[in-house]
Amino acid sequence: MAYAESEITARLADYVVSARTADLPDKVRHEALRSFFNIVGCTIGGARHEIVDLADKTLAPFAGPQQATLFARGRKADIMHAALINCFASSIYSFDDTHAQAVVHPSGPVAAAVLAFAEMRPVSGSDLLIAFALGVELECRLCKAVSVAPAVGSMAWSGTGISGGLGAVVAVGKLMNLDVERMRWAIGIALSQAAGFRAMHGTMQASMMPAQGAPVGLRAAVLAERGFTASSVALEGKYGFLTVFCEKPDLDALAGGLGSRFELLRNTYKPYPCGIVIHPIIDACLQLRREKGITADRIARVDIQASPGTMALCNNRNPKDELQAHVSLHHWVAVAFIRGTARIQDMDTETAVKDPALMAFQSKVEAVLNPAIAADGTELTVTLTDGSVHVCKIEHGIGSAANPMSDADLERKFVDMSEPVIGAVRTRELVAKSWGIASLIDAGELSRASA
Amino acid sequence: MAYAESEITARLADYVVSARTADLPDKVRHEALRSFFNIVGCTIGGARHEIVDLADKTLAPFAGPQQATLFARGRKADIMHAALINCFASSIYSFDDTHAQAVVHPSGPVAAAVLAFAEMRPVSGSDLLIAFALGVELECRLCKAVSVAPAVGSMAWSGTGISGGLGAVVAVGKLMNLDVERMRWAIGIALSQAAGFRAMHGTMQASMMPAQGAPVGLRAAVLAERGFTASSVALEGKYGFLTVFCEKPDLDALAGGLGSRFELLRNTYKPYPCGIVIHPIIDACLQLRREKGITADRIARVDIQASPGTMALCNNRNPKDELQAHVSLHHWVAVAFIRGTARIQDMDTETAVKDPALMAFQSKVEAVLNPAIAADGTELTVTLTDGSVHVCKIEHGIGSAANPMSDADLERKFVDMSEPVIGAVRTRELVAKSWGIASLIDAGELSRASA
Repeated sequence: MAYAESEITARLADYVVSARTADLPDKVRHEALRSFFNIVGCTIGGARHEIVDLADKTLAPFAGPQQATLFARGRKADIMHAALINCFASSIYSFDDTHAQAVVHPSGPVAAAVLAFAEMRPVSGSDLLIAFALGVELECRLCKAVSVAPAVGSMAWSGTGISGGLGAVVAVGKLMNLDVERMRWAIGIALSQAAGFRAMHGTMQASMMPAQGAPVGLRAAVLAERGFTASSVALEGKYGFLTVFCEKPDLDALAGGLGSRFELLRNTYKPYPCGIVIHPIIDACLQLRREKGITADRIARVDIQASPGTMALCNNRNPKDELQAHVSLHHWVAVAFIRGTARIQDMDTETAVKDPALMAFQSKVEAVLNPAIAADGTELTVTLTDGSVHVCKIEHGIGSAANPMSDADLERKFVDMSEPVIGAVRTRELVAKSWGIASLIDAGELSRASA
Repeated sequence: MAYAESEITARLADYVVSARTADLPDKVRHEALRSFFNIVGCTIGGARHEIVDLADKTLAPFAGPQQATLFARGRKADIMHAALINCFASSIYSFDDTHAQAVVHPSGPVAAAVLAFAEMRPVSGSDLLIAFALGVELECRLCKAVSVAPAVGSMAWSGTGISGGLGAVVAVGKLMNLDVERMRWAIGIALSQAAGFRAMHGTMQASMMPAQGAPVGLRAAVLAERGFTASSVALEGKYGFLTVFCEKPDLDALAGGLGSRFELLRNTYKPYPCGIVIHPIIDACLQLRREKGITADRIARVDIQASPGTMALCNNRNPKDELQAHVSLHHWVAVAFIRGTARIQDMDTETAVKDPALMAFQSKVEAVLNPAIAADGTELTVTLTDGSVHVCKIEHGIGSAANPMSDADLERKFVDMSEPVIGAVRTRELVAKSWGIASLIDAGELSRASA
């Protein structure tokens, strides 16, 4: 390694402070844009979820002045509350993004923080996008450094919970033009509030752990800018972050190759709002429907060869509510063949999970274990009522690292999430502003357009 | 153990929900009152510190409506901001309280949370005091369970940072009369935001880690009350708090003997605002001055036999500022003999640390290591200008577990802290209201009297 282990925090701060848009390769800038575009769609998609309502209404009595937009909620609040609720919304369907190695959903806390900040203190879209890219990059690096071999860490931590604040703080600190000393304090303040463990998964609090990263990062940047001090060696210092959050950190993953190696390029996007191991099965259904015109009324049975992970997690017929539907392959096969879609509204408890047609179709679906099938693959056989048989084999489902979603796929996902919430016209406007974020003079325009 | 390890969170919640004032032995209630009294004084004492100013002014633009008093700052804010700043103030001089085994300063987050809550939703002083007692008790138990042998934990965590939120949430949850299910969620929400490591010590952020416990606990209680869910087994569950915060928890310390064994009785209070290993030396100086009338002008030299800890941490002549004076035994010997005091204002950089008389006196002070002296003891020899020699030996300094501060000592400490900030008349009123908290119909009166 070309750097002293005692200089990790300084190196990260120095990199963020000095990085310029031109320093990022084109493909990195484009992947940052894709991550940003995707998370804006997720934020709108989750904005009216009943759990988001509950969190917003419960905490609104303590919120401050109208500084930043609550996406698609027709209101503003102080930047801390807005960033919290917007990030919470982006995470509520677990439909956001995932680094291909570390289990971290990086874009939520960073996007929510910079978007709220941009409404309080105007910044250009181009500056916002590079700040976002740097935040996501460092967040992925930190999470990888404490959880992916050769690092020795604990599966128990919430990856986004413990690294989201870092992503948010360096992004906001970059927009503030903090100097290196203050950037180091800002990193220290944010890391000393890093929190969250996986026992919360399956409860409402699961999405609150990543959401807290946004206000934690914002608050840390605001404090450091005014001279509020913290350890300058929060990561590597004695009794610091790396001591407590893992047994053995991978320092090279954290601070090696800054500016030349980009974890951001390993970010992936979920095409469907359900357990990731169901995704290739949905791909197969939609492909047969699209390419061979196979519709539900002609189907006698569906036989699925599924990976061990799919069988362990998602072999659940007749789910009772949204939470169970999230991990039922039978539900999604029925949805894909009957509706030709796989969207958020397709797991609504009343209008989808309890739809008699969807429930009835599930009895035709059988899954069997095939250990030779990978987690991102499947082999699906449809027998029609006329006796004919059609097979579809998927090697790597859409959205996997080997078969990423195209820009058009991402746009379709955005529209599917956004239209039911804010309608087609405003969705078109936001799609355009999100793809075009780098050319906005005032990045705050984007958030205001979502109100 | 008389309980299943799988029921830790349930047992704690059940205990808090069902505990009544009459269930607490008299001495426990009185120690709770002493802890409460002491922390109110510390809160006022720190309220106008320049670092508290900085934090309040920096975060005030994001604060909400005027729900709760910022102690001695002439303003109100939403309960989250008020609790944060009040707890920050109570911790800023490291002059609060310390559990005799676990390194936790328990009262700050709990008191700040219940006092802010009591202004938003009126509660009796008697209810507030029992809620405070239960919060402090569980906070001490949690910190002990992850850090004191037979537990195997890490010195690196900030004890108050990781357990303060629990103390605050159960206290506020008790005032809300949460049922057991919601109390368990509330505990889960708060614990999943538990954070802080000791690399921050010596910086402004050091006091922000405990301070965050107050709003974390308040927010968790408010959310759980409205039905926001979290893990019901946040402590002992798979991937839960006890997995991540220590190698091997002491489950009996955490959940054994609830209602019969009280960690609260091990709480101690600092008599002087400096390194705890200087305390017995100050005792000796003040005792000689008081009992033998020895004043600075008659002293030729002072020889101190000091413990290894005292020599390692505090053998620092001629400090330059408040932070250095905090850990200089020479400074405090000079203060004690010249001024006859050892108060916050006696370490003010301009009026004390740089006082020529105090600086000059320090050259007469010599400390030598005596391994036979315990951390809470000293042997001090004063040689007067007339050649006479006076010796004072302290076995256990005031404020140690073996020689606790009396109620009168605590009141003197309160007055010393409070008078320079809010004056003698208001101090007398707050002393009376604090000792008399259990008889207030509306506990919010106390906070309002501090404004």
